[in-house]
Amino acid sequence: MLVVALVALLTGVEVRGQEATKTIAERLGYSRDAKLLIVHADDLGMAHSVNAATMKALETGLVNSGSIMVPCPWLSEIATYARANPKADLGLHLTLTSEWTSFRWGPVSSRDRVSSLLDKDGYFKLTETDAAAQADPKQVEMEIMAQIERARALGIQPTHLDSHMGTLYQNKELFETLLRVARSQKLPVRVAKTWFTQADFVASVLKPNDVYIDRVLDINPSVAPQDWAKFYSDELKKLEPGVTEVVIHLAYDDAEMRAATSDHPNWGAAWRQRDFEFFTSDAFRKVLQENNIKLITWREIGKLIK
Amino acid sequence: MLVVALVALLTGVEVRGQEATKTIAERLGYSRDAKLLIVHADDLGMAHSVNAATMKALETGLVNSGSIMVPCPWLSEIATYARANPKADLGLHLTLTSEWTSFRWGPVSSRDRVSSLLDKDGYFKLTETDAAAQADPKQVEMEIMAQIERARALGIQPTHLDSHMGTLYQNKELFETLLRVARSQKLPVRVAKTWFTQADFVASVLKPNDVYIDRVLDINPSVAPQDWAKFYSDELKKLEPGVTEVVIHLAYDDAEMRAATSDHPNWGAAWRQRDFEFFTSDAFRKVLQENNIKLITWREIGKLIK
Repeated sequence: MLVVALVALLTGVEVRGQEATKTIAERLGYSRDAKLLIVHADDLGMAHSVNAATMKALETGLVNSGSIMVPCPWLSEIATYARANPKADLGLHLTLTSEWTSFRWGPVSSRDRVSSLLDKDGYFKLTETDAAAQADPKQVEMEIMAQIERARALGIQPTHLDSHMGTLYQNKELFETLLRVARSQKLPVRVAKTWFTQADFVASVLKPNDVYIDRVLDINPSVAPQDWAKFYSDELKKLEPGVTEVVIHLAYDDAEMRAATSDHPNWGAAWRQRDFEFFTSDAFRKVLQENNIKLITWREIGKLIK
Repeated sequence: MLVVALVALLTGVEVRGQEATKTIAERLGYSRDAKLLIVHADDLGMAHSVNAATMKALETGLVNSGSIMVPCPWLSEIATYARANPKADLGLHLTLTSEWTSFRWGPVSSRDRVSSLLDKDGYFKLTETDAAAQADPKQVEMEIMAQIERARALGIQPTHLDSHMGTLYQNKELFETLLRVARSQKLPVRVAKTWFTQADFVASVLKPNDVYIDRVLDINPSVAPQDWAKFYSDELKKLEPGVTEVVIHLAYDDAEMRAATSDHPNWGAAWRQRDFEFFTSDAFRKVLQENNIKLITWREIGKLIK
């Protein structure tokens, strides 16, 4: 028995050793030089405008993944979509902030159990830095588990996890909490290899069996509205091999979204309409084709988790 | 001292006796035959579309009162309006139901303290009958006090109270709870004399110092959309003297509101647009003038409470 166990252990080590030399693209069954892209819409459930634009974009197949904010008022609408589209690549956008001033939300857990996450009015805090600075990691773990449980209770089978406004990437303790929950749920998390050099705690928290992608691409407020399509097209034309997630924010530039984001042009209504227009366009489809970019999902990545 | 106290007591009784013979119109300083109307928009805070349409209608002066749903996602937008318009006649639309299936909300209190108010997903229940049947009155009192406290913390100074979907009028215990809270806050409540014959507990719960109006007028689903203006005009033309509250529901027939109310045409997006159109119209202004109907507010009624 001891010998068998020892052989199994050594084999395991060897397999992990072999796996470690393979790129994530290779582990997924693609060649080392394949350019693989997840086109991921954040913030589902936040507002009807977000849900409507993202569901429309998912229909095109050009946007092929998204994540859901469980504490938000329009969760039920997107849960209905998730139940009707069980193959959709929908994860959870774990939420610990409520960033718009006209339109707010709070925790799934009982408020008195997660008081470190709340502002004076009982909502989540406005910024990720305030949220991270004051959050008790035990309360964070309780709340994100409650979000996962509520999602499952509504018939959402999440394929992955990420963190709204990056709150759970703000410090080592919160990142460890996110990874611990993700491992317990056997779900992949938005973590990119390029982050290892940006925050020194990232590599130290990861364990050999954790799965991560190569890079995350997103637009930022320095890009002028008229340069939106050019920015994305240029980035995709020079896309490096491996797995890239392009993180986008879809909604319509309508009354609801303008009111929600009125004091906040970054990631606001017009921003989201521009993202919607580019990522549902023939121009985007053509860039994918001409540059040999293949779309993949978090569902595929999740299969690597044992 | 005993004599002074006795005289004071007798005087008090006498004043109350005199007051009791006066109509509410007379107590407000109007003649017995004055036709007094509160034009009251429910559901503020529920959605941006509701807030936007109601704020627009309040600007006309033809709609002159409204009440706010504290647990709802767009509370913050209407709280900003309330702080900027401290003379606006805004009350609280105490909320124990979450009736739309795509778009939900839950309690202000910690969920584990008000479990009798929740559905299996942690939201308020869909219907007022389910909510009333299962609600623990102590939990109801805690939750409605929490709603009042949160409103005040956000700078809303409520002029009156009423109950979303009439949940707090469903049985004697809940009605007693509403009245007890209202008395403690010295706020008038939507209660009409005509209800005394409709629910036998109403008169038995009221105390001599409680203030109530004569009647509440609202439209119902049996009125065809094309008869909307005619219904309201006809009702106003035959308005009886005393204090009437016409309870209306304003919003725009837009994407947000259509999605929120998609499975629920009654009190839906088109319904609310029709209410908005009539109550901001010249036709309504003309009916008021031609029928000598004077608009009053809950703020005036509240002054009768000692």
